[in-house]
Amino acid sequence: MQNSFVSHLYCPKCATSYTIEDRHQLCLCGSPLLVAYDLERLALSMDPTQLRDREPTLWRYRELLPVLHSENVVTLGEGFTPLLPMPSIGADMQIPGLLMKDEGLLPTGSFKARGAAVGISKAKELGVQELAMPTNGNAGAAWALYAARAKMKSTVIMPVDAPLITRNECAISGSNLYLVNGLISDAGRIVADLVKSYGLYDASTLKEPYRIEGKKTMGLEIAEQLGWKLPDVILYPTGGGVGLIGIYKALQELQTLGWVQGKLPRLVAVQAEGCAPIVKAWENQEKASEFWQESKTVAFGINVPKALGDFLVLEAIYATGGCAVSIHDEELLQEQQRIAELEGAFVCPEGAATFAAARKLKQSGWIAENECVIALNTGAGIKYPDTVNVQVPVLQPEQRITR
Amino acid sequence: MQNSFVSHLYCPKCATSYTIEDRHQLCLCGSPLLVAYDLERLALSMDPTQLRDREPTLWRYRELLPVLHSENVVTLGEGFTPLLPMPSIGADMQIPGLLMKDEGLLPTGSFKARGAAVGISKAKELGVQELAMPTNGNAGAAWALYAARAKMKSTVIMPVDAPLITRNECAISGSNLYLVNGLISDAGRIVADLVKSYGLYDASTLKEPYRIEGKKTMGLEIAEQLGWKLPDVILYPTGGGVGLIGIYKALQELQTLGWVQGKLPRLVAVQAEGCAPIVKAWENQEKASEFWQESKTVAFGINVPKALGDFLVLEAIYATGGCAVSIHDEELLQEQQRIAELEGAFVCPEGAATFAAARKLKQSGWIAENECVIALNTGAGIKYPDTVNVQVPVLQPEQRITR
Repeated sequence: MQNSFVSHLYCPKCATSYTIEDRHQLCLCGSPLLVAYDLERLALSMDPTQLRDREPTLWRYRELLPVLHSENVVTLGEGFTPLLPMPSIGADMQIPGLLMKDEGLLPTGSFKARGAAVGISKAKELGVQELAMPTNGNAGAAWALYAARAKMKSTVIMPVDAPLITRNECAISGSNLYLVNGLISDAGRIVADLVKSYGLYDASTLKEPYRIEGKKTMGLEIAEQLGWKLPDVILYPTGGGVGLIGIYKALQELQTLGWVQGKLPRLVAVQAEGCAPIVKAWENQEKASEFWQESKTVAFGINVPKALGDFLVLEAIYATGGCAVSIHDEELLQEQQRIAELEGAFVCPEGAATFAAARKLKQSGWIAENECVIALNTGAGIKYPDTVNVQVPVLQPEQRITR
Repeated sequence: MQNSFVSHLYCPKCATSYTIEDRHQLCLCGSPLLVAYDLERLALSMDPTQLRDREPTLWRYRELLPVLHSENVVTLGEGFTPLLPMPSIGADMQIPGLLMKDEGLLPTGSFKARGAAVGISKAKELGVQELAMPTNGNAGAAWALYAARAKMKSTVIMPVDAPLITRNECAISGSNLYLVNGLISDAGRIVADLVKSYGLYDASTLKEPYRIEGKKTMGLEIAEQLGWKLPDVILYPTGGGVGLIGIYKALQELQTLGWVQGKLPRLVAVQAEGCAPIVKAWENQEKASEFWQESKTVAFGINVPKALGDFLVLEAIYATGGCAVSIHDEELLQEQQRIAELEGAFVCPEGAATFAAARKLKQSGWIAENECVIALNTGAGIKYPDTVNVQVPVLQPEQRITR
């Protein structure tokens, strides 16, 4: 088996380099670190047809992942999720080329499994024995379960309002789970203190460099699934924004490799009206966002008032000619129901927001009718039972149904 | 694209044949119908290496599926779920060759998506516009969502005690959902009456012949994922038993094609102690089961007091030298937690029962230490939040964690 072509870590803010063999969190300047690969050498030794026979998981891209030794791979079979045509809802919003990347079909029911699989595998390779992290629910669930598979201890802190089912996932994994009577930013402060006091590995969003590498496989898969052609637009529900940063990174790597040609897709950060710091920053053409006061949305995964990687998200939007859009909770819940009725797909509220955003951008003319547009559904709707209104008649065993 | 090699329907009880072009439910003799393929012709025109480049969904086996025209395929990207090594729980029960087929990674979060994808696709091909079915939850959720994708109307009836989340899935799809204050057998009677009164398509377990064909792809995938070698034992949580019947049918078809050699795996029907009609029948070496009075188990999907296909399940067990085992609810819940802690997999209670059964059969010597054993996890644990005991401390934002 051919190994990773990873070379080193670098800081996108101050350009400092770090070795790949040692444990690093943030750059000394406070910025997240990114992973670099020896793409020139890889371009000479591989072409994408070699992927054809490989297993349908994200580990098919092992050359572009940071894990050096295959025995450190911690996997639950994650990746290569479907890229589905959505002809009916597409017709409804006059985007016939609408596709959905369905990240509900992953272990733990959300796209967080990608970051956890690669993040935990690399942590194992680095000898990490215990980690801590704040979460809005799904990331904590994924990291707790993958940590269990890697025989690693974990402490997870989530808001009391985070989806209930993610508590179960953490609890059953044996993780040390805490709730906080506040937001993910409050959980983050408690984790930072814990990490400092006890020397734990900080698995907070972007405080370790490898979660992005897992998330970037969404971009690799989209390109491969489209036959190494690029779509026109990708809409991504943006909380911490790691997936969007990752997709952008993936597409740049593929460009450098010469595996894709032409313009990159316009990347769209979709947020909720109740928590839209990136949208506000983009509207003002700022390079970073400001803390969003009293944030609130039913799309819990994107309730992130200030993202550590906001500047990377904004850079990806500006560089690709993308945009940022916010959606009202009412709108995204309506869209969620419409998607289920028209396409049989029960998406999560964050995923539904990307469809609502596509609809809005088509109406405004920002998306053209002939464009290939990908809505990224980040998780399974079944993790958010409260978003569905169920009113159902109860029959007695001897009753009949008459019309 | 090469088409299906389907030839006709036949009755496994009285051997009557039926055409594949027309709509059929049960045989006139009351037995479920099975689907036959022209395997001789297929063996001449295809070998399994041709599968290598195909998409990782169950539709890669289109020659062995009953849908004639690809435009009738209704898909949400289902199939080719992971076959995962389970080394830690395997070591714990002294079966190092323990594998899990993880059906939680399917649309709607359960293996029912396979039956629904193929069943709905064929129903669409047959011109069905409206169906009705009873369910213990997961099948109804899957059929309701796939029906929505196919623009088909559906009526689903489930027990009030069925997993709550499956109500949401049916409701959001636009299905006509009813609850019944009773068991799936009560729901079945109401459906039978409704179907008769209004001429609907009866999608009840085994009352249409195509759900088995979807479920059989589990067997095809297991064989392909093991490199066309067969495991020694497959453990299956048995309610209606369609998956077990389907796996047995798949393996026989592969034998006839010459794609696999040697003895078939011993098939094990796993039931709950509170609902074990197949186990009782197997213990008495009967050909059919008796209605299980006052059935009750936390593993809701296998709360089926009398399965229409019981005789086919028992035949598969007898023919392969398999057995039937029942598990106490307490035991399977303990196993569920152990699997999460040791392997990071949050399986459903029905899936956990198969692990508990493997443990039991190893202890009794029925499974040998060197055998390749597959536990079939039929769905995601996240669909059953009530099975996990969560006790978790709540912190205030200004609090710290000290050890």
